[in-house]
Amino acid sequence: MQQVVHIVNGPNLNLVGQREPSIYGHESFSDLLESLKQEFPTVVLEYYQSNVEGELINYLQGVEADSLGIIINGGGYSHTSVALADTIAASKVPVVAVHLSNTLAREAYRHTDLLAGKAKGYIGGFGMHSYRLALRYLLDLV
Amino acid sequence: MQQVVHIVNGPNLNLVGQREPSIYGHESFSDLLESLKQEFPTVVLEYYQSNVEGELINYLQGVEADSLGIIINGGGYSHTSVALADTIAASKVPVVAVHLSNTLAREAYRHTDLLAGKAKGYIGGFGMHSYRLALRYLLDLV
Amino acid sequence: MQQVVHIVNGPNLNLVGQREPSIYGHESFSDLLESLKQEFPTVVLEYYQSNVEGELINYLQGVEADSLGIIINGGGYSHTSVALADTIAASKVPVVAVHLSNTLAREAYRHTDLLAGKAKGYIGGFGMHSYRLALRYLLDLV
Amino acid sequence: MQQVVHIVNGPNLNLVGQREPSIYGHESFSDLLESLKQEFPTVVLEYYQSNVEGELINYLQGVEADSLGIIINGGGYSHTSVALADTIAASKVPVVAVHLSNTLAREAYRHTDLLAGKAKGYIGGFGMHSYRLALRYLLDLV
Amino acid sequence: MQQVVHIVNGPNLNLVGQREPSIYGHESFSDLLESLKQEFPTVVLEYYQSNVEGELINYLQGVEADSLGIIINGGGYSHTSVALADTIAASKVPVVAVHLSNTLAREAYRHTDLLAGKAKGYIGGFGMHSYRLALRYLLDLV
Amino acid sequence: MQQVVHIVNGPNLNLVGQREPSIYGHESFSDLLESLKQEFPTVVLEYYQSNVEGELINYLQGVEADSLGIIINGGGYSHTSVALADTIAASKVPVVAVHLSNTLAREAYRHTDLLAGKAKGYIGGFGMHSYRLALRYLLDLV
Amino acid sequence: MQQVVHIVNGPNLNLVGQREPSIYGHESFSDLLESLKQEFPTVVLEYYQSNVEGELINYLQGVEADSLGIIINGGGYSHTSVALADTIAASKVPVVAVHLSNTLAREAYRHTDLLAGKAKGYIGGFGMHSYRLALRYLLDLV
Amino acid sequence: MQQVVHIVNGPNLNLVGQREPSIYGHESFSDLLESLKQEFPTVVLEYYQSNVEGELINYLQGVEADSLGIIINGGGYSHTSVALADTIAASKVPVVAVHLSNTLAREAYRHTDLLAGKAKGYIGGFGMHSYRLALRYLLDLV
Amino acid sequence: MQQVVHIVNGPNLNLVGQREPSIYGHESFSDLLESLKQEFPTVVLEYYQSNVEGELINYLQGVEADSLGIIINGGGYSHTSVALADTIAASKVPVVAVHLSNTLAREAYRHTDLLAGKAKGYIGGFGMHSYRLALRYLLDLV
Amino acid sequence: MQQVVHIVNGPNLNLVGQREPSIYGHESFSDLLESLKQEFPTVVLEYYQSNVEGELINYLQGVEADSLGIIINGGGYSHTSVALADTIAASKVPVVAVHLSNTLAREAYRHTDLLAGKAKGYIGGFGMHSYRLALRYLLDLV
Amino acid sequence: MQQVVHIVNGPNLNLVGQREPSIYGHESFSDLLESLKQEFPTVVLEYYQSNVEGELINYLQGVEADSLGIIINGGGYSHTSVALADTIAASKVPVVAVHLSNTLAREAYRHTDLLAGKAKGYIGGFGMHSYRLALRYLLDLV
Amino acid sequence: MQQVVHIVNGPNLNLVGQREPSIYGHESFSDLLESLKQEFPTVVLEYYQSNVEGELINYLQGVEADSLGIIINGGGYSHTSVALADTIAASKVPVVAVHLSNTLAREAYRHTDLLAGKAKGYIGGFGMHSYRLALRYLLDLV
Repeated sequence: MQQVVHIVNGPNLNLVGQREPSIYGHESFSDLLESLKQEFPTVVLEYYQSNVEGELINYLQGVEADSLGIIINGGGYSHTSVALADTIAASKVPVVAVHLSNTLAREAYRHTDLLAGKAKGYIGGFGMHSYRLALRYLLDLV
Repeated sequence: MQQVVHIVNGPNLNLVGQREPSIYGHESFSDLLESLKQEFPTVVLEYYQSNVEGELINYLQGVEADSLGIIINGGGYSHTSVALADTIAASKVPVVAVHLSNTLAREAYRHTDLLAGKAKGYIGGFGMHSYRLALRYLLDLV
Repeated sequence: MQQVVHIVNGPNLNLVGQREPSIYGHESFSDLLESLKQEFPTVVLEYYQSNVEGELINYLQGVEADSLGIIINGGGYSHTSVALADTIAASKVPVVAVHLSNTLAREAYRHTDLLAGKAKGYIGGFGMHSYRLALRYLLDLV
Repeated sequence: MQQVVHIVNGPNLNLVGQREPSIYGHESFSDLLESLKQEFPTVVLEYYQSNVEGELINYLQGVEADSLGIIINGGGYSHTSVALADTIAASKVPVVAVHLSNTLAREAYRHTDLLAGKAKGYIGGFGMHSYRLALRYLLDLV
Repeated sequence: MQQVVHIVNGPNLNLVGQREPSIYGHESFSDLLESLKQEFPTVVLEYYQSNVEGELINYLQGVEADSLGIIINGGGYSHTSVALADTIAASKVPVVAVHLSNTLAREAYRHTDLLAGKAKGYIGGFGMHSYRLALRYLLDLV
Repeated sequence: MQQVVHIVNGPNLNLVGQREPSIYGHESFSDLLESLKQEFPTVVLEYYQSNVEGELINYLQGVEADSLGIIINGGGYSHTSVALADTIAASKVPVVAVHLSNTLAREAYRHTDLLAGKAKGYIGGFGMHSYRLALRYLLDLV
Repeated sequence: MQQVVHIVNGPNLNLVGQREPSIYGHESFSDLLESLKQEFPTVVLEYYQSNVEGELINYLQGVEADSLGIIINGGGYSHTSVALADTIAASKVPVVAVHLSNTLAREAYRHTDLLAGKAKGYIGGFGMHSYRLALRYLLDLV
Repeated sequence: MQQVVHIVNGPNLNLVGQREPSIYGHESFSDLLESLKQEFPTVVLEYYQSNVEGELINYLQGVEADSLGIIINGGGYSHTSVALADTIAASKVPVVAVHLSNTLAREAYRHTDLLAGKAKGYIGGFGMHSYRLALRYLLDLV
Repeated sequence: MQQVVHIVNGPNLNLVGQREPSIYGHESFSDLLESLKQEFPTVVLEYYQSNVEGELINYLQGVEADSLGIIINGGGYSHTSVALADTIAASKVPVVAVHLSNTLAREAYRHTDLLAGKAKGYIGGFGMHSYRLALRYLLDLV
Repeated sequence: MQQVVHIVNGPNLNLVGQREPSIYGHESFSDLLESLKQEFPTVVLEYYQSNVEGELINYLQGVEADSLGIIINGGGYSHTSVALADTIAASKVPVVAVHLSNTLAREAYRHTDLLAGKAKGYIGGFGMHSYRLALRYLLDLV
Repeated sequence: MQQVVHIVNGPNLNLVGQREPSIYGHESFSDLLESLKQEFPTVVLEYYQSNVEGELINYLQGVEADSLGIIINGGGYSHTSVALADTIAASKVPVVAVHLSNTLAREAYRHTDLLAGKAKGYIGGFGMHSYRLALRYLLDLV
Repeated sequence: MQQVVHIVNGPNLNLVGQREPSIYGHESFSDLLESLKQEFPTVVLEYYQSNVEGELINYLQGVEADSLGIIINGGGYSHTSVALADTIAASKVPVVAVHLSNTLAREAYRHTDLLAGKAKGYIGGFGMHSYRLALRYLLDLV
């Protein structure tokens, strides 16, 4: 049976590659997914993005226990959403909270991370590498 | 004409009965609704659940003035949503804010309750009984 | 054997019916007690009121384990009394914290409720109905 | 009919004249009362002191509408008692909150004055003169 | 080629004209749009309203660079949404944040405005005129 | 030799009698001064008003040691002016800080009173009587 | 009779055009006034600038009820002056608080705006256009 | 002449031995007093307990200067009572503030200790030993 | 051409030498100026003092670019004046912020220094030497 | 086998007896150790002092499980060191946190005590007696 | 030439494997280093641990520009050390801040991470995997 | 006998001249010392630098009373070290706290300066001149 990992992106992450490249770089997520698929050919990467907080909750709730885990970049909701944090706390599979940028080096309101506090762990500041590291972690767990 | 009460549940409350039973118990909402219908056979219970903050707002706005009232469990949005609180303030019918758990005995960020502050009143900590008490209150008002 | 419920009122609640009727209504507690007795003829309602924080503690400590529970409206002490909260935490029977008014819609210093955080649950904003709902809850527990 | 003014002193004010004379002076309250009686022979001064918060509440509740007003020095309760503040808000007669010392020149926790915020006004820092001024005010109102 | 301006309204603004007229007035947005179209016949006004935070993000992301600009009233999300603020920061066209009421004269939690801080500027307190002024500004820029 | 008391009013107090009469009453300062002069014929009342913080400082610095004292209503500067507070701390004569309204019953930013903390004492909430009481106090000191 | 609008500038705004042009632009206020006069030939623009808080208060107090309104840029006093805010609250004519820069995108101490909270409304971030929009608003009111 | 030490217990400490034994242990105060009397046969231990803040104040005020000192466990009042702290500051004999549990390892609101700040010193976390150590200290002083 | 340095003193600094000598010493500013002139005969010292915040702004704005720099002691305005800080930020010449006393060893509200944060640097705690050191620094820069 | 107790002193405690005798007394630690040895001849007192936070950690880590316990006075590190607190939490033997002075009666930054919160208990304010009491406690435990 | 990575551990991390295994696990760092060496045979791992903040600074300063990077677990210093954060900001090579535990799920004082804010990025919550991921990241950079 | 001044540098100041020259300049401390020796040939400059907080304490404790004084740049420890501040408070000679950069113009956590509050005075923002000015001050004292 094939292994599945869910990658979930929150608000504005569909713009990566276009938006503020000095912070977020020029690579888009489809580029990243392509390169991750080549690097990890044995794992299925399920990708989901939504700008809607509640749709992210819906999607996370639907991830079944046979997933290896969830990699979530909550974007701006990371800093404000008790509701998403509750969903992560209720997840049946391990969750890794990631960020492209070093949120601790930015505005003070990005220093609070409600999602990371309910996840297994957090990775931030490494651009697209943040996802790659999270993926490796989930595969190491197997 | 039949009396209607609207019961509205926010994020993650569709998981009740499965999620963290030590906090939320093993009963699901369909069980609760069934038992409430038997207990109060003369009242129609309209039930709505969404994980999407804005859909909750949409639903609340659509409740007409001939409803006896709204029982809302805002879940995680209770503590953060100015938008939902504004909707409650604009409601044409009485609103009761409920919680399953005693939110004042949990994390500090659950001690703020923006929705309750705009509702008629609040009830929390009694598990599924919180809804039952709210329903009795609305029926007493008639 | 007859069932007993203890109703305990804190400071200034002896004035209800006279004081600030726009907030607290015109009904007095003896009216309420009378109507509750008629509504629940099988239960003995033990009523106690004191303006003295320590006498409330004395009374609560004296409630025996065969009481169905305590309904307490701590009044102004709700927001400041660590001592009363400690007594509630040590209670042998379930405690329900009630308020006549919606304290979350009033001054900021009424948004903290130390007593409610140590009680089984809280009910507020429904005027005299807050007590009625609390009583129903305790009877439902039996 | 004779005019009555109620003077109410809170905790530790029975020690004035003995305790920390560098802050509170050497005059005792009986000295003060004596000199006020001579100065204002037409008014009856009802004096009450208690160290018990709730007894102060009891006393204040018992002051009838034909009193010219209440002069209260809440002592340490001034800075912490929501319950006493509620009683003052419910008073049938004007209340003047007084202090012997200039509380704003002392520890930060004495800068909050819950009682004064619910009274007609406040007078502080003038030693025994604070009471004299409050009394004159109440007599001027007639 | 015709000039386009996007007007975007957030949660509960579909109720304007019905809800709390003492704060928001009796005019509805369709009345406003009609009068703006007559006043500015050469500009196309694209109007969008949603109660869903993420749909507002979707819509803002879809505004193309040939728009003259966006006028956004974020409603309750103005005070809490890091996600919407991030979208505004990434906008290709100038954004003006507006409010009907003077938010600085209302509850303290309305004094923070995350959206306005990422917009070109802010206008608030003028009722429907807030939109009219924003529109004039965008037209002046041409 | 005649006794002198200095009465100093800060910003906007020249409007009293016209401005917000529900808070400040209908009597003007010239009315007050007139009635005080009749009440205390043996004392010279030097009156000064300025809206300029620094001119208030200039005036206070110029009050000589043979004055019986200063009665100052710092208006809005009471809550913000370290500079004026420093001047009061350096005064050669006793200073009484007064307010017309009960500042502790108004906006939170009026609960801080830098001037009162450096004065001999404070009197507030009694309308024009606040000045009368302050004057009596200074005369009692002689 | 000719219509009059008062434009009042606070501290350092006499330097605009010279000071920090990256924030405030190169246009001076006399340029702005000239262009506004040409744009609105029927209205008399009374212009006043002072670096002295109390002189601003004096000027505002002197504006008569037949003015169409006041446009005030309080500069640094916007964030600290209770006294000026009190004057605005007492104004006989509508007041619009303006800023050249987007104060919400700058230092945290510029996010508080005491003047705007007492004005009819606020406009900020549009450079000299902030004044133009304010003026249009006042003319629309007629 | 025999030496006397006063041991004063505040609210809920009459329950020790029954209440929350995981925090407070199984020994009761009468057990402790008995064992202290055997250990220190030459000293008279005066024991007082009250749940009433003001009665504790009364008792403390009544301790004469020939006492070796006071050992006080203020219970929940330790963290909130300015009034009791004032009484301790006025004590004629040395006061030692004790706690059974390590209050600094518990809820944040127990980290403030107003009584300890006015006492000679503080001892906490050693269960009944806290009293024993305090007693030894007072005897060492002789 | 002669070198000029501007020394600017804020509120209450005209009292130095008379006021609170335990903090500020017995030397007056004219003494200091005299001794500085003798020590630095080649530099012209322009001295200005005002108690009026706005006049200090006026004066600072008038200092031309051929001055070696400004030494400012903002007194009480140092801790509160955004307006003066803005003027310093716009200064054409280097500004040194000085204090006589060690403001960090005094009341907490003196620990904020808005002026120093916009100046080149700060010197405090050395009495009159603070000015001497500032002057040496400005001369070293040449 | 002989019983061992470790006494560990943090920064500046090597100066006791010389430094600020009004706070810390005239006795030095070698005096104290000598007198404790005479008082408790059967116990070996291992004494260590360092001004280096990490060396204190090294030493604490090296204390073996056969020690009766550690008495630590963390000095200034008590209020700031998460690292030392972590070491105490990991200690194999009971730790008592002591202070010479009553830290709760001093500067606010001394009211936080991270070390005491992780220790068995705390003793402060009794000068050298604080160590004596801690030692007695550890010996009582045996 | 061989590639070098520096792994730097702060206070108490020498205890890992022994201390609080429920948080930190049973594996020691020498186990981890051994397994990393086998996994990455081509890279030299320089390991350093100290409990002394300043020695960590010394070591970090000595890392030369030909290192691939530094992996630092600052332990308790992560949350308090401005000095270490300054050293990281001055590092010639990329720094990754790691934690074994999910610090955001623990005490509030661990939610601030000064070191991570100056590093390239942060990884926490994955036990020993946190180091493995950091190492992979540094190798990916080559 | 020769005069001695001690110059003490804290963490990361050994990097000055290499690290972040835009903030700290290109001059190294040995350059500075050399130039100060030439400028002040009669004074012996004892220089000490350490990155270890406790070694700085050791060194400061060792400075004898015949030193003219200590110039300390505490670097990052300035903002966090109660321990170093205590050492300064106990110093036998005058201490001047210096900074190269204007710490009040940088991150908020650099605005607190515990060391400066216990020193004679503070000087910051003048680069290497900060030390020069401090030295002149100490020599002026002689």
